[in-house]
Amino acid sequence: MKLLSKTIENIEKISIDADGNIKNRFSKLAIPTGSLGRLEEFATIYASIKGALDATIKDKVVFTMAGDHGVCSEGVSAFPQEVTGQMVKNFLDGGATISVLAKHVGARVVVVDCGVKADFKPVEGLKIKKVGYGTGNIAHGPAMSRNQAIKSLETGIEVFNEELVNGMDIIATGDMGIANTTPSSAIIACLTGADLYKVTGRGTGLDDIGVEKKIKVIKTALDVNKPDPSDPIDVLSKVGGFEIGGIAGLCLAAARHRTPVLIDGFISTAAALIAFSIEPKVNDYLISSHKSTENGHKTALEKLKKRAILDLDLRLGEGTGAVLAMSLIEAGVKSLTQLATFSEAEVSTPCVTK
Amino acid sequence: MKLLSKTIENIEKISIDADGNIKNRFSKLAIPTGSLGRLEEFATIYASIKGALDATIKDKVVFTMAGDHGVCSEGVSAFPQEVTGQMVKNFLDGGATISVLAKHVGARVVVVDCGVKADFKPVEGLKIKKVGYGTGNIAHGPAMSRNQAIKSLETGIEVFNEELVNGMDIIATGDMGIANTTPSSAIIACLTGADLYKVTGRGTGLDDIGVEKKIKVIKTALDVNKPDPSDPIDVLSKVGGFEIGGIAGLCLAAARHRTPVLIDGFISTAAALIAFSIEPKVNDYLISSHKSTENGHKTALEKLKKRAILDLDLRLGEGTGAVLAMSLIEAGVKSLTQLATFSEAEVSTPCVTK
Repeated sequence: MKLLSKTIENIEKISIDADGNIKNRFSKLAIPTGSLGRLEEFATIYASIKGALDATIKDKVVFTMAGDHGVCSEGVSAFPQEVTGQMVKNFLDGGATISVLAKHVGARVVVVDCGVKADFKPVEGLKIKKVGYGTGNIAHGPAMSRNQAIKSLETGIEVFNEELVNGMDIIATGDMGIANTTPSSAIIACLTGADLYKVTGRGTGLDDIGVEKKIKVIKTALDVNKPDPSDPIDVLSKVGGFEIGGIAGLCLAAARHRTPVLIDGFISTAAALIAFSIEPKVNDYLISSHKSTENGHKTALEKLKKRAILDLDLRLGEGTGAVLAMSLIEAGVKSLTQLATFSEAEVSTPCVTK
Repeated sequence: MKLLSKTIENIEKISIDADGNIKNRFSKLAIPTGSLGRLEEFATIYASIKGALDATIKDKVVFTMAGDHGVCSEGVSAFPQEVTGQMVKNFLDGGATISVLAKHVGARVVVVDCGVKADFKPVEGLKIKKVGYGTGNIAHGPAMSRNQAIKSLETGIEVFNEELVNGMDIIATGDMGIANTTPSSAIIACLTGADLYKVTGRGTGLDDIGVEKKIKVIKTALDVNKPDPSDPIDVLSKVGGFEIGGIAGLCLAAARHRTPVLIDGFISTAAALIAFSIEPKVNDYLISSHKSTENGHKTALEKLKKRAILDLDLRLGEGTGAVLAMSLIEAGVKSLTQLATFSEAEVSTPCVTK
């Protein structure tokens, strides 16, 4: 609890382009005013967080947080539970989508076992930080104890802090956990007050009957556990997941260290919502990377007042959308830091339009 | 004319995933069906064009085509005409947005002087292929002769063919030409039949009065020149531009050589519309990279039945949106070619949902 509270206490609010220096710099670049669109927005957020007009991006890291879910036994996923552990191995072998896409954009992958129901041999690139062997079945009781919820948050903080030494200018979040759209929908319903039909989707491939069943399971989970919407740690412990707590912890730690966070899709956004509910200042550091096709993602983004960067119909998780968006943040930062000004390039400035 | 007709004659129609091999390969990858969204679509287009499941992307090239416009003297742009030539120098010096973003995604920049009203010293990275020293003022007469229109198309074909020897798996188009949203709006109005108010926008920064004036200029240009919508070369010669013809030529040459083309924003899409009107089969090779904020881009994309990849409020041209989207095409191709299958990764396949 000490690590958590210390991290939260030290999060500073960001004032976007407080002194107008970033806008001023953009106005001098040899481009029509505003023509870079959102690239200018990305550069402005990045430079404001870093507090430096010339801050560059060198080290990019994606944390893929894995955990298992007891609620899987209710038949809420198209895949069997053992896939979580199998995919962790696939991440480490380099054959998973996040392995390939992170390499494509030049990001380092850190895989974290937050609570998979399988044991792994210690290998490079994997951090074993088990909070438990899968959560409890939320249809019958809480996912975890309050202490475990705090521990899962602190796991995210810990892995962030450990990686600082290896260099980390910007991070992306990712998840792996069979059945984890179910707790994510429960969290979003609880923290936004939205109807379950609005925030529950097909996950990895449920049909209409499967979705109906999933909604019933989530309704039961909320009825049985009665998570308190005013207490995000209670929500995490009652209907959350170990990797979801881990991602929320990453958000808090990144904010603490003035590091921008690319939030992946549905599960990562549910986790970001927990971090935001714990400490609203964290939101200044969060960037929504892509629109997930999962029902309910929109609701969560509205609560965070975020506009996603990409809309590629992705619904994979792992951090895949986040690393792709990370490359666009970098494009924005390079525009701010590497473009020639009108005067340097000897380009004429606009005339007054007649 | 011979180069043009020979190029057009040799364009083959693409059958998307004719034998179902690409879909079949995706179904074996260790991901939920369809979870890669548009990345799967991009990979499918690429592999279909290349005719090989394992086709990779090595050499990426963006062609930034520059030309001047006589209509600039009507006061339709916020920038003075000499900026076209100044920006060409900026591209070559590496300080322009396209220089920075192309480097970011690992693409080679080829700058082509299709008809700038300024002379350049021959330097590496610049192809001097002047069709003229700026077009005629379309408010008073044709932009160019029919022969020049054909020559501008052949310029695009020529520069493409010349670059083949340096390796080129996929290309992006880009434009530079002060006032070139004016001919682009005229082309789109002519070839789609859309109202001028729907297809005329602010360009590099006109105010409402400026836009009204621009619409009047375009209306005059269409009245004076009477371009024939059924004859795209006539449209190009009457109200087009040298760099617009060059981009249309690039599209034709790329299709001829089974090379996918990332179409940048408004100007490039107007050029693509000319290429499509010359030979509809070219459309199989065209990918729309981003939604421009310029009025009328949507109308042109609807005609080509394309869904843009990015929506970043860009309105810069140069090929900037196209190179960013190129990196996402590459992400899709890498997903198809580098991901492990369920069997390779020893990951369990989906169970039937209960």
